[in-house]
Amino acid sequence: MQCYPHQATSSLDFGGQHRRTMSVVTLEKCRENIQKQLDNVVDFWLKYSHDRVHGGFFTCIGRDGNIYDELKYVWLQGRQVWMYCRLYRTMDRFHKPEILEAAVAGGAFLRKFARVSNSSGQWKCAFCLTRDGKALKVQRTIFSECFYIMAMDELSKVTGDKDMQLEAEQMMEQLIYWVQVDPSGLGRPQLPGEVPINSLSVPMMLMCLVQQITEGRGQEVSQKYKELGIWCVQQILQHIQRAGTAILENVSVDGSELPGCQGRLQNPGHALEAGWFLMLYGAQWGDKEIQRTAIRNFVELPYQYGWDKEHGGLFYFLDVDGHCPTQLEWSMKLWWPHCEALIAFLMAYNHTRKPELLEIFSEVYQYTFSHFPDAENGEWFGYLTQQGKVALDFKGGPFKGFFHVPRCLYMCERILDDLLENKD
Amino acid sequence: MQCYPHQATSSLDFGGQHRRTMSVVTLEKCRENIQKQLDNVVDFWLKYSHDRVHGGFFTCIGRDGNIYDELKYVWLQGRQVWMYCRLYRTMDRFHKPEILEAAVAGGAFLRKFARVSNSSGQWKCAFCLTRDGKALKVQRTIFSECFYIMAMDELSKVTGDKDMQLEAEQMMEQLIYWVQVDPSGLGRPQLPGEVPINSLSVPMMLMCLVQQITEGRGQEVSQKYKELGIWCVQQILQHIQRAGTAILENVSVDGSELPGCQGRLQNPGHALEAGWFLMLYGAQWGDKEIQRTAIRNFVELPYQYGWDKEHGGLFYFLDVDGHCPTQLEWSMKLWWPHCEALIAFLMAYNHTRKPELLEIFSEVYQYTFSHFPDAENGEWFGYLTQQGKVALDFKGGPFKGFFHVPRCLYMCERILDDLLENKD
Repeated sequence: MQCYPHQATSSLDFGGQHRRTMSVVTLEKCRENIQKQLDNVVDFWLKYSHDRVHGGFFTCIGRDGNIYDELKYVWLQGRQVWMYCRLYRTMDRFHKPEILEAAVAGGAFLRKFARVSNSSGQWKCAFCLTRDGKALKVQRTIFSECFYIMAMDELSKVTGDKDMQLEAEQMMEQLIYWVQVDPSGLGRPQLPGEVPINSLSVPMMLMCLVQQITEGRGQEVSQKYKELGIWCVQQILQHIQRAGTAILENVSVDGSELPGCQGRLQNPGHALEAGWFLMLYGAQWGDKEIQRTAIRNFVELPYQYGWDKEHGGLFYFLDVDGHCPTQLEWSMKLWWPHCEALIAFLMAYNHTRKPELLEIFSEVYQYTFSHFPDAENGEWFGYLTQQGKVALDFKGGPFKGFFHVPRCLYMCERILDDLLENKD
Repeated sequence: MQCYPHQATSSLDFGGQHRRTMSVVTLEKCRENIQKQLDNVVDFWLKYSHDRVHGGFFTCIGRDGNIYDELKYVWLQGRQVWMYCRLYRTMDRFHKPEILEAAVAGGAFLRKFARVSNSSGQWKCAFCLTRDGKALKVQRTIFSECFYIMAMDELSKVTGDKDMQLEAEQMMEQLIYWVQVDPSGLGRPQLPGEVPINSLSVPMMLMCLVQQITEGRGQEVSQKYKELGIWCVQQILQHIQRAGTAILENVSVDGSELPGCQGRLQNPGHALEAGWFLMLYGAQWGDKEIQRTAIRNFVELPYQYGWDKEHGGLFYFLDVDGHCPTQLEWSMKLWWPHCEALIAFLMAYNHTRKPELLEIFSEVYQYTFSHFPDAENGEWFGYLTQQGKVALDFKGGPFKGFFHVPRCLYMCERILDDLLENKD
């Protein structure tokens, strides 16, 4: 297993015909590699992404660290603030002033520039800003707002800023209204052919935000969002379709299958991400049944249909009936589904200690670490061809920032800490 | 040269080290193959695409003719009506009742369902309709309207319907207003970071519409749109950048380069398409200088930077400074840029009789006919990997309908007719 491209670590090889459960020694080697990777990735973004003139973060960063575009994507600004804060708050070796300062500066940039005025008030966020913070594009979805909330809430946990916490909660109220009551404030005209859709990303993101906002806030806040959490779980479980044999990305609001490509779409990476969100929820509320469903339907199943048996790696999109997806990138191997799979399988193994889950973790691990990290210039490539060749060589772009890679490494390191502390 | 995949026609091989000008005999063979291909493609769409229940055309058609989605994309509805009418009106072997009837039925579906009411009146068209014609999605651009106009104008030329001609002209007025005076009716909110952009597709499409609407309508209509035609040419020529060494897809409205990825973007297929539009314009107005510019800057140049020297075929997107484009599909080989290249090089050769232009036509022809047509089930594949393998195997999808392939074959057949009638 090539854990780190420039290291020959064949003792970690669990692939091929002689799979066996990872021993404690190899899990320790695995943690060591993951720690190194996380340090490397944090260094990369600290070095190249900070805009010291206008604030905020550059995210269009080329192979060797060059900035090839100065636009500031709000999803990625919010995610980077969140990730810096989470590392600062929960891992000793990242509890450093330069990380806190970068997070605070990124938060200030977001608060100053991300929100745009629209007919429904001041709660809509832009999708993309110019380098100096002028709104350039607004999406008619909830996701810029989601990452804004994640940033503000986590930053308030680090700084103790009550205003910021309140702002996160107020924007959360707006989000809930758009999702559960009336989406018209998002700016999309209602059209006669449209039917309301339950798209997996929406309850997933809301559930992630519920976990974010309630974490460490005490009983009162926890109770306030309890109903919403239950609603999110129920919405996510509606995506289990075809007698439990498929996770479909889009279903009707009453949980039935939709016609056409939209209804048949599968996104294995999303399903896996939902899987570990559900496992966390199950752990929080002591719900063993949800954990079992999460592992069976949202972790094992998407791997079964989403893994490319010929070339390895997870497909980006699939059609449940085997038609060719219409997304041109359907067969490409993207970094983030592999990040989600690593977290999902390691967490599932930690919950169950079933060797077969660790074996799949090992397979995903081998593919991921032998294909995505760039040993020469640091960080990871994001986009490979079906055959596993680098297709786009930048380290950051409009949708790839300081988020999936460090979150995966951070989560895996923590789970490995737990596993190694509680050896069998 | 494999003109048609199941035929071995090695006598047509002009590639490799021993390039020579195509002889009259091989041009005749080439025309024969193109005729067969056109017949094959028309048969495919007549057989599979007609919705005899609700009217209009299915365009999501799988490899073997199966309908994998019933949505009706307005761009493609308009284009199919236009193409049927053009074939019916100008080519004897397609002057058949079933083609006229299909065009008339498609036009009726469009008139009944495509237009949606919005704040700026009844001129906005939907992007996508349900099978029975309910609007599902509206784009905040002008392109659905462009293809609506093309359909209505060409249909009125076939049927003599004056109402329809008037409707096309009225919608054209709305379009000109959106492009030249005030785009707010398109529905996109004005944002402080936005700068107005000259995107190549807009003047290209307007120029195409001017040629459509004026063709065969006499002096008065021709004069009415003369100024607009001149404006379109001037807007298109602004895309010649970097001292004539590059065509850039997006420039500022005063013709200077824009910063970032957007400003550096190149789309060789679009440039080639603009090239033959400009050649037609030059021929119409007897402007030799425009024809020379078209051939040098919009035909030869995009081939030079857009052709993949390693694997053959035209890249979809490039960055003029050699950065990796952020479009995931940048290195894929799509059918339509190859269609535009075939028309552009054959037309350029017909104008100039320069052997090197015919040699490049031959190279594009060999790549195209050995990679895109499906000898087994008819029609063409649309999307190949960089290496030339079929990546998406459907014949029609949300953006591939009955348009680029038949238009290319139709144009090439007519140019070859002209070339073979006027042999050197």
